[in-house]
Amino acid sequence: MAMENFRQFAVALSAAFAFGIVSIVFVGIWVNHYRGGVGWDGGPAEFNWHPVLIVSGFIFLQGLAIVVYRLPWTWQYSKLTMKFIHAGLHLLAFIFAVIAMVAVFDFHNAAKIPNMYSLHSWLGLTALILYCLQLVLGVGMYLIPFTPASWRAAFMPLHVYSGLLLFGSVIAVALMGITEKLIFSLSNPKYKDSPPEAILVNVLGILLVVFGALILWIATRRPWKRPSEQILHTLHTNVGSDESGKVGPALSELSDGADAEPCEEVRRRSYRLDDQDN
Amino acid sequence: MAMENFRQFAVALSAAFAFGIVSIVFVGIWVNHYRGGVGWDGGPAEFNWHPVLIVSGFIFLQGLAIVVYRLPWTWQYSKLTMKFIHAGLHLLAFIFAVIAMVAVFDFHNAAKIPNMYSLHSWLGLTALILYCLQLVLGVGMYLIPFTPASWRAAFMPLHVYSGLLLFGSVIAVALMGITEKLIFSLSNPKYKDSPPEAILVNVLGILLVVFGALILWIATRRPWKRPSEQILHTLHTNVGSDESGKVGPALSELSDGADAEPCEEVRRRSYRLDDQDN
Repeated sequence: MAMENFRQFAVALSAAFAFGIVSIVFVGIWVNHYRGGVGWDGGPAEFNWHPVLIVSGFIFLQGLAIVVYRLPWTWQYSKLTMKFIHAGLHLLAFIFAVIAMVAVFDFHNAAKIPNMYSLHSWLGLTALILYCLQLVLGVGMYLIPFTPASWRAAFMPLHVYSGLLLFGSVIAVALMGITEKLIFSLSNPKYKDSPPEAILVNVLGILLVVFGALILWIATRRPWKRPSEQILHTLHTNVGSDESGKVGPALSELSDGADAEPCEEVRRRSYRLDDQDN
Repeated sequence: MAMENFRQFAVALSAAFAFGIVSIVFVGIWVNHYRGGVGWDGGPAEFNWHPVLIVSGFIFLQGLAIVVYRLPWTWQYSKLTMKFIHAGLHLLAFIFAVIAMVAVFDFHNAAKIPNMYSLHSWLGLTALILYCLQLVLGVGMYLIPFTPASWRAAFMPLHVYSGLLLFGSVIAVALMGITEKLIFSLSNPKYKDSPPEAILVNVLGILLVVFGALILWIATRRPWKRPSEQILHTLHTNVGSDESGKVGPALSELSDGADAEPCEEVRRRSYRLDDQDN
């Protein structure tokens, strides 16, 4: 099934992916080149797992989890399959974030630095707890088969809003963490003297913002949403009884040219009937 | 014209307003009780204008500007009137933000502290420049009368997305600024010793996040959008020729009960015809 403005979607998705990967490379350079690499010894090397896991897990994997329904080449798979991938990626991101927190607590305790005094720590832990709640509620609502469809539909706007808000908040909290870490760890030259490490990590912050902005753009474009199950089912059924047997062209024709308008109408009418608004 | 879920809207709006006002009170206490008040002398008192103007202007006024179309008691005014209020509040927020920047540059220059070295400064200045661009493009698109309606409609998704992204980003940048300021200005006891000032300002950060979350919730609820001009025009025309002459009840009846469904249909059909999606 063809997507509206597929070219623009492909550009946005590729850019998001590229910015995400480059962010991970940047955090890797920061930690390995400037901060002595990673380890699990209670020292600074254990702390270093914190930015690595936050960027690669709590930001990058969470971003992928958010846009996974948008990939048109997955529209041939069942909604349930995609829900498992969506939930699985979020679960993985959550596990990364939990290990990232453990690394910081271990490091603080070994170095006798107080825990949970900064706004970064308050908002970061709150985000992690709310993310866990979102995950549990999401599974309860959309993966347990006997949750009523009316509940699913009623909860969906909150699920989408909370998900996007948490994603943005996690990036904001990461920017605060970058600020803290550069002030605390740079001395002679200090952060205000703009040594290469400061520039590198400032750029990392900008990469994270651009990654977040692209994911939020992709996630909030209505025409890029996965079509409702009714439409996909209709298409599959039509294809099954197709006389010519040419599956590919028959599928794409249905959403091109003259057929696009009625299809949009159907999509709009069936909008509230399943939980496709994610 | 009655609004869907008006009670929920009223609660969200009142809560947003309350969190905004309490944030301004908190920044006032911070600056006056702990940081020696405000002044315009190149010293710390001049710096203190920065958080005050950012919270009251770049965050609170910007938030109000974003939700101004949502207030149902303004739906009786022309769209043009509301556009001027929307643009005027954003312009005021922008002026507050510019003065806030000037205060910091003056303070840095007098104290021989480098400018523009931190991620906070990079993202803050970028947000201010993009906010200015958004303002200029918004006026050019929606207040200059001869801009084609097709351009207005095509640009609207980007206008809304950029506006909400900038609003969220400004709050994120403020949280980074809070982090910087508490680390730099607290010594003996330090930030990590959690003195009362640290707690107060951490709470201010949380208030700002809640304010932002409420504004974003209000702004993104579809049923709370200002109805299209066509619907409002139809209602006014109907009221004008109303035999009973009871303006109020006639207005509200039109969107209640049995009439709600067709009204929603009209709203949806006329969705792309004017620039009401803001």
